[in-house]
Amino acid sequence: MALVFVSCADSSSKNELLQFNTDIKEDATPDVLSKIMEAENLSEIRFEKGTYHFYPDKALEQFCYMSNHDDVLVRTAFPLKGMKNLTIDGQGASFIFHGRMIPFLVEDSQNLTIKNLTIDWDVPFHSEGLVVARNEQEGTFDLKIAKDYPYEIRNGQLLFIKEYYQHSIGEGILYDPARKAIAYNTEAYTPLTDWQESSANNGINEIHYKYEVDSRSPEQSHIGVENRIVAQQLKPGLVRIYHHSKKIPELGMIYACKGSHGENRIAPAFRVTGSKNFQAVNVTIHHAGGMGIIAENSEDVLLDNFNVTPSHGRMVSTTADATHFVGCRGKVTLRNCTFNNQLDDAMNVHGTYQKVVDILDDYTIGVRMGHFQQLGFTLATANDTIGLVRLSESFFPYEKLTVKKITKVNRRYQKITFNEKIPASIQAGDLVENLENYPEVLVDNCNISNNRARGLLISTPKKTVIKNSFFSTEMAAILVPVESGHWYESGSAADLTITNNKFDNCSYSGNNQAVISFVTDDDNANIAFKNIEISDNEFNTFDNLILEVANTDGLLFSGNTINSSNTFPKINPQNAAIHIRSSKNIVFDKNQYLGSAKEILRCDQPSKLKFK
Amino acid sequence: MALVFVSCADSSSKNELLQFNTDIKEDATPDVLSKIMEAENLSEIRFEKGTYHFYPDKALEQFCYMSNHDDVLVRTAFPLKGMKNLTIDGQGASFIFHGRMIPFLVEDSQNLTIKNLTIDWDVPFHSEGLVVARNEQEGTFDLKIAKDYPYEIRNGQLLFIKEYYQHSIGEGILYDPARKAIAYNTEAYTPLTDWQESSANNGINEIHYKYEVDSRSPEQSHIGVENRIVAQQLKPGLVRIYHHSKKIPELGMIYACKGSHGENRIAPAFRVTGSKNFQAVNVTIHHAGGMGIIAENSEDVLLDNFNVTPSHGRMVSTTADATHFVGCRGKVTLRNCTFNNQLDDAMNVHGTYQKVVDILDDYTIGVRMGHFQQLGFTLATANDTIGLVRLSESFFPYEKLTVKKITKVNRRYQKITFNEKIPASIQAGDLVENLENYPEVLVDNCNISNNRARGLLISTPKKTVIKNSFFSTEMAAILVPVESGHWYESGSAADLTITNNKFDNCSYSGNNQAVISFVTDDDNANIAFKNIEISDNEFNTFDNLILEVANTDGLLFSGNTINSSNTFPKINPQNAAIHIRSSKNIVFDKNQYLGSAKEILRCDQPSKLKFK
Repeated sequence: MALVFVSCADSSSKNELLQFNTDIKEDATPDVLSKIMEAENLSEIRFEKGTYHFYPDKALEQFCYMSNHDDVLVRTAFPLKGMKNLTIDGQGASFIFHGRMIPFLVEDSQNLTIKNLTIDWDVPFHSEGLVVARNEQEGTFDLKIAKDYPYEIRNGQLLFIKEYYQHSIGEGILYDPARKAIAYNTEAYTPLTDWQESSANNGINEIHYKYEVDSRSPEQSHIGVENRIVAQQLKPGLVRIYHHSKKIPELGMIYACKGSHGENRIAPAFRVTGSKNFQAVNVTIHHAGGMGIIAENSEDVLLDNFNVTPSHGRMVSTTADATHFVGCRGKVTLRNCTFNNQLDDAMNVHGTYQKVVDILDDYTIGVRMGHFQQLGFTLATANDTIGLVRLSESFFPYEKLTVKKITKVNRRYQKITFNEKIPASIQAGDLVENLENYPEVLVDNCNISNNRARGLLISTPKKTVIKNSFFSTEMAAILVPVESGHWYESGSAADLTITNNKFDNCSYSGNNQAVISFVTDDDNANIAFKNIEISDNEFNTFDNLILEVANTDGLLFSGNTINSSNTFPKINPQNAAIHIRSSKNIVFDKNQYLGSAKEILRCDQPSKLKFK
Repeated sequence: MALVFVSCADSSSKNELLQFNTDIKEDATPDVLSKIMEAENLSEIRFEKGTYHFYPDKALEQFCYMSNHDDVLVRTAFPLKGMKNLTIDGQGASFIFHGRMIPFLVEDSQNLTIKNLTIDWDVPFHSEGLVVARNEQEGTFDLKIAKDYPYEIRNGQLLFIKEYYQHSIGEGILYDPARKAIAYNTEAYTPLTDWQESSANNGINEIHYKYEVDSRSPEQSHIGVENRIVAQQLKPGLVRIYHHSKKIPELGMIYACKGSHGENRIAPAFRVTGSKNFQAVNVTIHHAGGMGIIAENSEDVLLDNFNVTPSHGRMVSTTADATHFVGCRGKVTLRNCTFNNQLDDAMNVHGTYQKVVDILDDYTIGVRMGHFQQLGFTLATANDTIGLVRLSESFFPYEKLTVKKITKVNRRYQKITFNEKIPASIQAGDLVENLENYPEVLVDNCNISNNRARGLLISTPKKTVIKNSFFSTEMAAILVPVESGHWYESGSAADLTITNNKFDNCSYSGNNQAVISFVTDDDNANIAFKNIEISDNEFNTFDNLILEVANTDGLLFSGNTINSSNTFPKINPQNAAIHIRSSKNIVFDKNQYLGSAKEILRCDQPSKLKFK
């Protein structure tokens, strides 16, 4: 018998316990799914320790709008919808997924805990090849591709073929297998220069669009371009790459890729939306075709000993961020976590900006989602306070209104009706943001290293503490942005403490980001960030720039030690150690600079500010 | 004011009338949509005569599983869901759609009438090019492509770019502009030979799939193949096509294409599902990116003066069937209709076969959808009678069961629970069909001509009458199949009358189909068709084969006149006029054969049967 049903000890509560053993390991999907769907008062699901395979063929399907992912039909064996007070205890089990699945699809649930299990994919959503030859004269390099990564070449294009999936050579980066980390200065080599103007066209510039079109969306971004890279198989498992115009990758590096942006984020390990008090404890994610966890519009999320690390000698763990929180509130806690080798940030926290396009009546506006990976996102629930923002004037709202209702017309266009009259000063082009959907954040005792992109990308005005953690990231370790023009990710920082962390040779990819960076993409001097403390941290750095501060009012940098490492050659020797721009009330105190920058402090205007 | 609300004369009924005038013509979508969504007892919607544009940008979006289409996010201004006793009267209005929209999305509605309007698209979902040069030695031909069909060439591939859409050169056919019809013998020239084995691969044959995989699905069908056709722009608007290996298209023909199968059926004009008594009267559809109407699981559909014809000098009207009925019941009536120039059948009526893959318990089976364009189709509602079919033994069910419930797990896999115990004789691989979801069919006074593919493709055991109609179709005028292996479209014929029609030079494409054809794709002598009458029809034919009968018990062919035309050269002179195979009780009476076949009647076995 694959399934054993055990009544809960306290039968009066009528709670139901599901207990699965390894009899179902060949394809656990049908049994797990049907028992979850049939259960009525599920309080616990336990798995006998062992390895369980989950196939999509008999999994539940639904269409998902997922923030910062692609909107796709997904399949799951764990549709955790409207659950209350449920614990899933893997008891050390390993779950191996196949193809396009979301391991845990959590919607509208409360007090849900998932613990003691490992998630991996049998066939990953990315591919890897070892650079075994290079020819600078010819501009070619050769990839040795193991059978683990089946491929074919169609019309000169290299396609990696998976179980129920395929991807191109796009969105690639170099890993250094000796360090098992992103390769030093990879930005000089990658991404591959795969796009060029298409060879001919007729009439495409005269196509009439009545409304704004998102030229970056997957539907539009291919117009006017064609592939530049050409691949040729030299022998099975050995492929030569032509026409790359950046530096030719070095021998011994591993090229890891996941295919085109807009097509490759389809299977996060956890998707949590509209939920309260979600906890994942003692969970390891070896892989996902997207993020480790994407949490949207949820309150209170705790990840404790929640780890993202690669398996089976792969360079890559998840193909996107380890953790990502959009429009969350309450408190988001990451404690005792390891985030290694994923292809994007370890943590990303932000809201969304949506653009006002129609003033429909005295109370109702029409808004347009800015970025195609926010499509379908719900900005608010009834009575949430919304800010009307005009970034050319201020990063902070010029007016606040409360929501009566939101009508999701389609994934790009929604209507928001307010309880109050809309001010006459509103203009098409203004932005709206939900002022309540920002969480407090605690990052404590985490290891964030060897991954692509940033460590923590945090935009929340609520209390944020980052402490006792280790960072060794390809770009900035901590990036605090206000970003309106590309990703439409809203936020700010108003109470942020970064203390007692170690930053070890961060920003080594060539992106010229400071180890800790406060930046906006709006070219003005308005204040975006307030009340920042960076204290008692240790920076080991081969390069110069450790701190960039812009649009900030109130930053204390104290008790920090900056050491020089010789791990890599400097990439940006022209930088000072600290850059400050459009900011005030910056204080340096009791820091120790043992680095090798010729200039410690560079300000955008004459200043009496001193590094101490 | 764009909207005028008029109370219904009979105010006691609380019925609501929406009346729209041409103030909203620039983009009628937002107003029409919001008023329909807000209405509570809608009984009539009227449009002032005029031209209205409908854009998708502010249209309602939903994900749709559509039979015989692709499953996609669709947008509509007319979400007609759960409507009762509603009439939409265009009063002669023209509706022009833009991009990926479904003009009328009808679900779970009763007594819905749509009348007096015309549907077209500003930019069509297909493209056309005139053959202006050909070179048999080089195997090339040149297409002159008007600005109406913007294109670009990417890596040698010709892509047609539309408003919010693109398609390749695939699924193309030749039209003869002089006849404004599919070109004679087009099968010798088209489709283009666009696929060849991909140039190299490694490991793709070792990818492990636990369950059956549909190698024809869009996700899988590209594996192992690459494009063979190469396109080169000679000057803007003039493109040379290389590597076509069939006959090179003739000068003056128009090549019309719609892109790859599995991607190009996304925007039918009417999608009707789960509805009762749907009527469309005085409706003209000039174009749709899919069918004119796809009706699923609906009862009683009347199309009267419902016409599919091209506009603006285009060769193509709809890019798929004019009308298509899957799993419908009651009566389907086509009266006074014209179906011209569409890229697939004028009418298609069938059920679905679904394959038994799991016997889950005494009452429940798991079934797999056979064809990727049936995904998500609901086979039955509670208490419908289902037949268990083993086609190797019979076309008719070996057992009948009634449905208790159907659980749609995903679009490929569903679970059917019966009220009765499943017989022990059931085997994985058997098929199920819904024995109740076949309609009576009446086709009366219709003109079906100049289109690709068949006229009527009808598989229903219920009373079917085809009369007073005119056919001039590229393939068979009337095809009655049992088809299990490719499309998984179920059905049979048990009471079919074809009378008083004119068949004018049908089957001129080179497909070697009889003008009227009864065929199964199962190689056995079992009876599939019964009680057929073909009487008092006129056949004008340039070729020989007018009737093919297989697996039939009881067919009367009487009072028909077969004339010879010299419109085209014979394509299949080896045929007799009539082929009969695996059939009995065939009667010929009072027919007049004035054709030019050397042999009138050919039977698969010695027979006393005589043509009279």
